[in-house]
Amino acid sequence: MSDTYKSPLILISNDDGVTAPGISFLVNQMMKLGEVVVVAPDKPQSGMGHAITLGNPLRLEKVTIFDGVEAYKCSGTPADCVKIAKHYVLHDRKPDLVVSGINHGANSSVNVIYSGTMSAAIEAAMEGLPSIGFSLCDHSHEADFSHCLDFVYNIAKKVLENPVEAGVALNVNFPAKSENSLKGIKICRQANAKWNEEFETRKDPFDSKYYWMKGEFENLDDGNDSDLYALENNYVSIVPCKYDLTDYNTIDTLKKIF
Amino acid sequence: MSDTYKSPLILISNDDGVTAPGISFLVNQMMKLGEVVVVAPDKPQSGMGHAITLGNPLRLEKVTIFDGVEAYKCSGTPADCVKIAKHYVLHDRKPDLVVSGINHGANSSVNVIYSGTMSAAIEAAMEGLPSIGFSLCDHSHEADFSHCLDFVYNIAKKVLENPVEAGVALNVNFPAKSENSLKGIKICRQANAKWNEEFETRKDPFDSKYYWMKGEFENLDDGNDSDLYALENNYVSIVPCKYDLTDYNTIDTLKKIF
Repeated sequence: MSDTYKSPLILISNDDGVTAPGISFLVNQMMKLGEVVVVAPDKPQSGMGHAITLGNPLRLEKVTIFDGVEAYKCSGTPADCVKIAKHYVLHDRKPDLVVSGINHGANSSVNVIYSGTMSAAIEAAMEGLPSIGFSLCDHSHEADFSHCLDFVYNIAKKVLENPVEAGVALNVNFPAKSENSLKGIKICRQANAKWNEEFETRKDPFDSKYYWMKGEFENLDDGNDSDLYALENNYVSIVPCKYDLTDYNTIDTLKKIF
Repeated sequence: MSDTYKSPLILISNDDGVTAPGISFLVNQMMKLGEVVVVAPDKPQSGMGHAITLGNPLRLEKVTIFDGVEAYKCSGTPADCVKIAKHYVLHDRKPDLVVSGINHGANSSVNVIYSGTMSAAIEAAMEGLPSIGFSLCDHSHEADFSHCLDFVYNIAKKVLENPVEAGVALNVNFPAKSENSLKGIKICRQANAKWNEEFETRKDPFDSKYYWMKGEFENLDDGNDSDLYALENNYVSIVPCKYDLTDYNTIDTLKKIF
């Protein structure tokens, strides 16, 4: 390391909120790699997708829950957290890496579009910053993250050393802890799958109806290059994600119709 | 039309809420094409991206604001509205088309990822349903939609006659009303652009700080095949959008790094 080496600046967010166990594991790993700043939601924001707060102001408060780390809780969504971190908290300091998670729950396959964890990473990618979202396929608050930690460190280190193309966020998912060791990393595409939803109808104490969404996840993909295939076979999956939603394959078809 | 012709079933949602003027224009046009059912948010949901409601129940109530149309207001996000419409309100009836809007405000370029309007259309595409999100580049509540209405009708009619590939949602944007007539339709890709944000710091009546996000939109794209180019030249832009966020171009690069 040369004398001019500057410790990388790593911004951390998540969607389970600043007090979730997953983010503290992430902070601990990232502190070994550089200077860490945390800006994370003040409450759980699961399923927030790429929501941002437009019609309301945001609150931002310093918290002292991570030893030796500058950290803030924010009243907004994960995407808001990245925006306020980049444009207010960090002033003109540009993070070398933005990481989000470790999420309590899978963000593989189609779930990426609903994911608050990944929205923080994708928002960073939109700002041209290298970014990674980490998720564990176990949504319990007491989930065991021990098998992920070396991978989290090594994946972040590799991205710091080899920043991927601007505009790309890595979606990293870990299989839930089991008696089998993880077999390694697979670079994947997002699996084709769907949620088959149901709305459970209930009545509140005032006899008014309300509806609670529940669903069964259905894997429709039989390829061996998908993230679901990797996870089912005890690999860590990494899917590069972009924010350009254009379906280039359909442009010519549409030109014939319109 | 043969004797066996069945009127198409058209589901309508939006993100400005069920009472926004834009949705009533859309309802009026779609009633000429088939049977309409509306399930739309009970309050504005702009910028909600692809958020869904997981930790809370939903409320759903019938409203009688559109003459002769079955309509509901829902306490959830635009994506929730499509889910509860598909899996509860419509029971086993599959819509022939899902349309969202007409949004008061542009959803061109990178804004698609923040858009509640487009999340309803993309959620429908995830269910394999043909879908369109309509937006007007004028966010005023009193926006003039008159120049869009024939296009809205004709675009929806063409999609009913030529359903595009499952999994694709059309993102249709209209230039704001001006003295010049619209020149026609352009099939486009999403323009590369960004928001340069700022957070205005204010104090509430209790002397506590709060922050309000504002931003300047910057077009970084000099191509003539982008939606921003089409809109600037007074064309209606149509971008096909997909929910697979995988950046296939980066997979090989990542395989070399990891």
